[in-house]
Amino acid sequence: MMDAMTLRIGVVGGGQLARMMIAPATELGIELRVLAEEPGMSASLAASAVGDYHDAETVLAFARDVDVITFDHEHVPQDVLASLHGAGVRVHPGPGALAIAQDKLVMRARLEELGMPQPDWAAVSTPEELQVFLDAHGGRAVVKTPRGGYDGKGVRVVSAATEADDWFAALAEDARGGALLAEELVDFSRELAQQVARRPSGEMRAYPVVETVQRGGVCAEVIAPAPHAGERVRSVAEEIGLAIAEGLGVTGMLAVELFETTDERLLINELAMRPHNSGHWSQDGAVTGQFEQHLRAVLDLPLGDPAPREPWTVMVNILGGPTEGPLEARIPAALASHPSAKVHTYGKAPRPGRKVGHVNVAGADLDDVAYEARAAASLFLD
Amino acid sequence: MMDAMTLRIGVVGGGQLARMMIAPATELGIELRVLAEEPGMSASLAASAVGDYHDAETVLAFARDVDVITFDHEHVPQDVLASLHGAGVRVHPGPGALAIAQDKLVMRARLEELGMPQPDWAAVSTPEELQVFLDAHGGRAVVKTPRGGYDGKGVRVVSAATEADDWFAALAEDARGGALLAEELVDFSRELAQQVARRPSGEMRAYPVVETVQRGGVCAEVIAPAPHAGERVRSVAEEIGLAIAEGLGVTGMLAVELFETTDERLLINELAMRPHNSGHWSQDGAVTGQFEQHLRAVLDLPLGDPAPREPWTVMVNILGGPTEGPLEARIPAALASHPSAKVHTYGKAPRPGRKVGHVNVAGADLDDVAYEARAAASLFLD
Repeated sequence: MMDAMTLRIGVVGGGQLARMMIAPATELGIELRVLAEEPGMSASLAASAVGDYHDAETVLAFARDVDVITFDHEHVPQDVLASLHGAGVRVHPGPGALAIAQDKLVMRARLEELGMPQPDWAAVSTPEELQVFLDAHGGRAVVKTPRGGYDGKGVRVVSAATEADDWFAALAEDARGGALLAEELVDFSRELAQQVARRPSGEMRAYPVVETVQRGGVCAEVIAPAPHAGERVRSVAEEIGLAIAEGLGVTGMLAVELFETTDERLLINELAMRPHNSGHWSQDGAVTGQFEQHLRAVLDLPLGDPAPREPWTVMVNILGGPTEGPLEARIPAALASHPSAKVHTYGKAPRPGRKVGHVNVAGADLDDVAYEARAAASLFLD
Repeated sequence: MMDAMTLRIGVVGGGQLARMMIAPATELGIELRVLAEEPGMSASLAASAVGDYHDAETVLAFARDVDVITFDHEHVPQDVLASLHGAGVRVHPGPGALAIAQDKLVMRARLEELGMPQPDWAAVSTPEELQVFLDAHGGRAVVKTPRGGYDGKGVRVVSAATEADDWFAALAEDARGGALLAEELVDFSRELAQQVARRPSGEMRAYPVVETVQRGGVCAEVIAPAPHAGERVRSVAEEIGLAIAEGLGVTGMLAVELFETTDERLLINELAMRPHNSGHWSQDGAVTGQFEQHLRAVLDLPLGDPAPREPWTVMVNILGGPTEGPLEARIPAALASHPSAKVHTYGKAPRPGRKVGHVNVAGADLDDVAYEARAAASLFLD
């Protein structure tokens, strides 16, 4: 009966984002194939191949039998993406958009061209240049390595140029050279995230802007929609998301992480061109979850309704998990105490700080919903 | 990372019910393995084995590495179930409960012992006995083969005993002998279905009673909850469901198909001890869908909230599909016209009358919801 299938997606990367595409793919009737980095990863159920995504031959062979290639992460090298493009493979998001997500300096420059609101920034190649930036911004700044950072890694708040000496030394040893990204330390009151889906043929749908709560540089909790967000904040966030998706030619899901400043401006912090932790609430809280929406978008299928199904949805990450025994051993207690909680686990071994699952709760009363979600998630920790 | 997993379910049978267990299993963190009848079936993504479920060795080998065995259908022979039981395998629903679902005569007798409301019935071994039943019931009756019938197959309305001659002849040739089931032709105003989940340790949760619309003996549409069902009908249906689940020792999902008579009585039509077509609405319309609930129940995990998430959910089956081309080719048009529709397809080739998918729509206005669901489903037909 395989001949009845016509919608095949290949996902490069076998992490939890690929895993969470399995449910909507199976429901809608899309065949999902995953190229996993190793056996036994989160998305292993759909893994049709195991191999190194840095190797063009491996990825090309994987791509041969699918309609479109998409990603669990943004780390596939540009030469591999170019090989896919050269072989006529449909790739979403495309190499051009991914190049922007892969380099924070490129991202800042492109957002500036688009006239998007963002913190002051500069490319700094030497401690002296960083000191100039510090002097111009009250003696403090955020310094980021342009490539490879995530979840707080490759990000440092400094008040002296010497605090980035190791990164400058690494730059000097790198044959490619380059620079660090220095950013104004924004005085923000909270963080928001705006998600947009965009199809290759142009259709876009925006999710409601959400509030994200970070702890130690890692997303801990998301409240959807963002509480106390007025019409202006909601519409500006949506306009920013739509403008970036269109301006950068993003296909699939785009997440824009935003600072809301104490003087009510929105400034762009980071971009992600894939389903994103800030959108996990939508699995159980929106008519169309972000994983289904991503599949639809990369296949250039009509997009689904991103409207919330309940007044409030709260997502709480399970960070680290228990220090003894498997995560799954905690499921019975969580389900028993919280029948309205939707528990998601990723099939990953617990490890301090690691994202191993999350809990969604949706309902009419924000206090109740947040309490249930936090209480259920806490049962997966010691 | 496989060592982190502790919840493994083996499903015997690779049809759409097994397929629809994949999404909630993946989300919750349950490892699902399927013993499929052949390659390329609906649940092939999770198929870890292909083999004949009539063969005890095949099923025993499949069961070796899972925590519990459950089913896509009720057809696994009792000798195979006994072998599993003998080998210490946890099986839910158990052989005793399945024996009742496998034989409509046994079912009628057990429901009578439980004092459940049902149509008048009799076991008839000869045309003469059937004629006696006909004479006592206004000259018309429903005749059923006790085993192997589904979706209207093995069910016949007769007004003369000779109309079942072929079935009596088949009985005579069957070494096991036996009888046909004759039932009173109930003057019903509509059909309802009551679902209940029950864990081995006893906890039960009842879904709201729904209305099912049959066409040609096949479920065409389900409205959840049943419109115009008063408090009495709702509570009687729930009591019947709970009494049967407990009385027959059902574990997992139980569906009770009911006739609502013109004089407002509820009479039991059929039972199913598995997720059921009448519960597909719950995938998108209830806090806990029936497939997730079945997985929880058979693992003896705490059950989830069966409450509806919206005032109304309508499920419309896609019966047959298009006469030309794959079903999936119709997905774009359906999604484009009906952004609120949740489309489910089963990876099966279209064939007249075959259940190849369904559409769920949930919302506040029943007319709108029903219109959208019917319109979206119709786009998958010629």
